[in-house]
Amino acid sequence: MNRIELIGVPGIPLITSGDDLPQVIGEALERSALILQENDVLVVTSKIVSKAEGRWIDLSSVTPDEQALAVARQCSKDPRLVSVVLGESTGISRISHDVLIVEHRLGFVCANAGVDHSNTRGEGEWLLLLPENPDASASGMRNRLVERFGVQIAVVISDSHGRPFRLGTVGVAVGSSGLPALWDLRGHPDLFGRRLQHTDVGFADELAAAAGLVSGQAAEGIPVVIIRGVSYPVDNQSTSADLNRPRKFDLYR
Amino acid sequence: MNRIELIGVPGIPLITSGDDLPQVIGEALERSALILQENDVLVVTSKIVSKAEGRWIDLSSVTPDEQALAVARQCSKDPRLVSVVLGESTGISRISHDVLIVEHRLGFVCANAGVDHSNTRGEGEWLLLLPENPDASASGMRNRLVERFGVQIAVVISDSHGRPFRLGTVGVAVGSSGLPALWDLRGHPDLFGRRLQHTDVGFADELAAAAGLVSGQAAEGIPVVIIRGVSYPVDNQSTSADLNRPRKFDLYR
Repeated sequence: MNRIELIGVPGIPLITSGDDLPQVIGEALERSALILQENDVLVVTSKIVSKAEGRWIDLSSVTPDEQALAVARQCSKDPRLVSVVLGESTGISRISHDVLIVEHRLGFVCANAGVDHSNTRGEGEWLLLLPENPDASASGMRNRLVERFGVQIAVVISDSHGRPFRLGTVGVAVGSSGLPALWDLRGHPDLFGRRLQHTDVGFADELAAAAGLVSGQAAEGIPVVIIRGVSYPVDNQSTSADLNRPRKFDLYR
Repeated sequence: MNRIELIGVPGIPLITSGDDLPQVIGEALERSALILQENDVLVVTSKIVSKAEGRWIDLSSVTPDEQALAVARQCSKDPRLVSVVLGESTGISRISHDVLIVEHRLGFVCANAGVDHSNTRGEGEWLLLLPENPDASASGMRNRLVERFGVQIAVVISDSHGRPFRLGTVGVAVGSSGLPALWDLRGHPDLFGRRLQHTDVGFADELAAAAGLVSGQAAEGIPVVIIRGVSYPVDNQSTSADLNRPRKFDLYR
C-alpha cells in the first residue's frame, strides 16, 4: 500500500432525475479508457446520486408547520427550508444563529440534514436532499459495475460535513459497499509486533476525504473518483452506517 | 487536479531523540530516488516528529496531584497518565469511563491530549507527547527540504483523532506550512458560474486523512507520505491552527 492513486473520472455529464447512474459512470469510464482494476474504490458524490434519484424539493411547494416556524425563528433560516430539514431528521442537536444541526434519519449528525440549497434547477428555488438510502445506492452501483467490468470493486458515496471542533468541511462517507467502513485494526501487529491499542479507523471517511482533494472544488465538476492501490479486505456486510457513533457512546450529541 | 498520487516514502529508519528529521527524510528520499516535485505536499506523522524532539515522559517519574487523582477516578485511567494529559491541556471537555477529552494547549479538542501510550522505549513505561509546536516543526522541515531540493513544497504534520459523532479515527493536521490549512473557496465559481455557498474546506485535514490511507496501518511503518498533483495556492501565513474552531463558534465544547 505504498502508492495510491486518486483518479478523477472525466466526462461525467450533468445528472438529471431518472438517469441510470451506474450506466452513465460505466460509459464515462469506457470513453476515457479508464479500466477498472481489482479492488479499486469508486468514490461518488452524494450530490449526483441525489440528482439521479430526483431528490428535489420545490421550495415554493413547502408549507412549514408550527415547529418549523419556531425553529426557523431560532436560527434565522427560511421556515420552508427548516421544514424540509426537520422532515429528514430524527432530532435536533443544536440551534444557533444561522446554524441548525440535526440527527439525520440515516443516523449521522450534520448541519441542515445535508439538504443542499446551492444548486438551481431551472426556474424557482429547489432543495436537494441526500439520497434516500445511500448504502443501498452504493451497493446497487457496485453490483452493476462489478457485472459490467468483471472486477471486484468497492463504492463509497461521499458528502462534505463540518465538524464540531474544527473549521472547514471534509469529505465523509454517507454510503458504502464492499469494504470495512469502520476498519478494526486490532488484529494487526504494530512495528514492534505487539497488538495495536488504537483500533478502529474511519476507513470509508478517509477514502471520502482523499477523494475530496480531487472532486472538492465544485468548479472542477468531478463527481466520481477512482482510488487505486488501497489494500483492504472485501466486506459485503459493512456499510457506512457502521460509522455512526451510537447515542450511548456519544458524549456530545 | 484530475490525478493525485499518494507515495509512501520507504526506508525511514526508527527515529530517536535528537535525530535531525529533515536530514533523515532527505536521505530517505534520495536513497529511494524519489525526486520531490514543485508543490508536492509532504505529510509526516506527528509520532516521528515527537520522537525526534524527544517528547518522552517516563511514566514512573510522574507524581499526580490532587486534580489528576480526582480526574483519574472519574475516567478510571492511570493517575500518572492523567497528570501528563492535563499538563498538555488548557481545559477538560468530557470525562467518562475510560474517556478523557481535553482542550489541547495547541487549540484543538482531542482524547488524552494526543498522548501516546502505545509505544515502548527500552525498559519501563513511557508516554509520547505531541510535538512542542508542530506548526513550527512543519515550517522548519519545509525550509530545510526546500533548501535541499530546490523546489517549493508544503508540509503537513498529521495525527489520528476520533470524532464526536462518528466512530473510527481519521488523520487530521496538527501542524502545517506552505498551504491554506483552511481553504476558503468562496472566490471560486461553481459549475453554473455562481459563487459557492459552502466556502471553507479543511484542506490540510483532507491531506492528512488521505495520507492516512498509506501510513495509517502501523505495521507498514510508513511515517512520511508524498502527495503529488494537488493544486493549491502557496500560503506562507496559514498554519494548522486555522483549523481550530474558536470557542465562540463552538456549540459543543
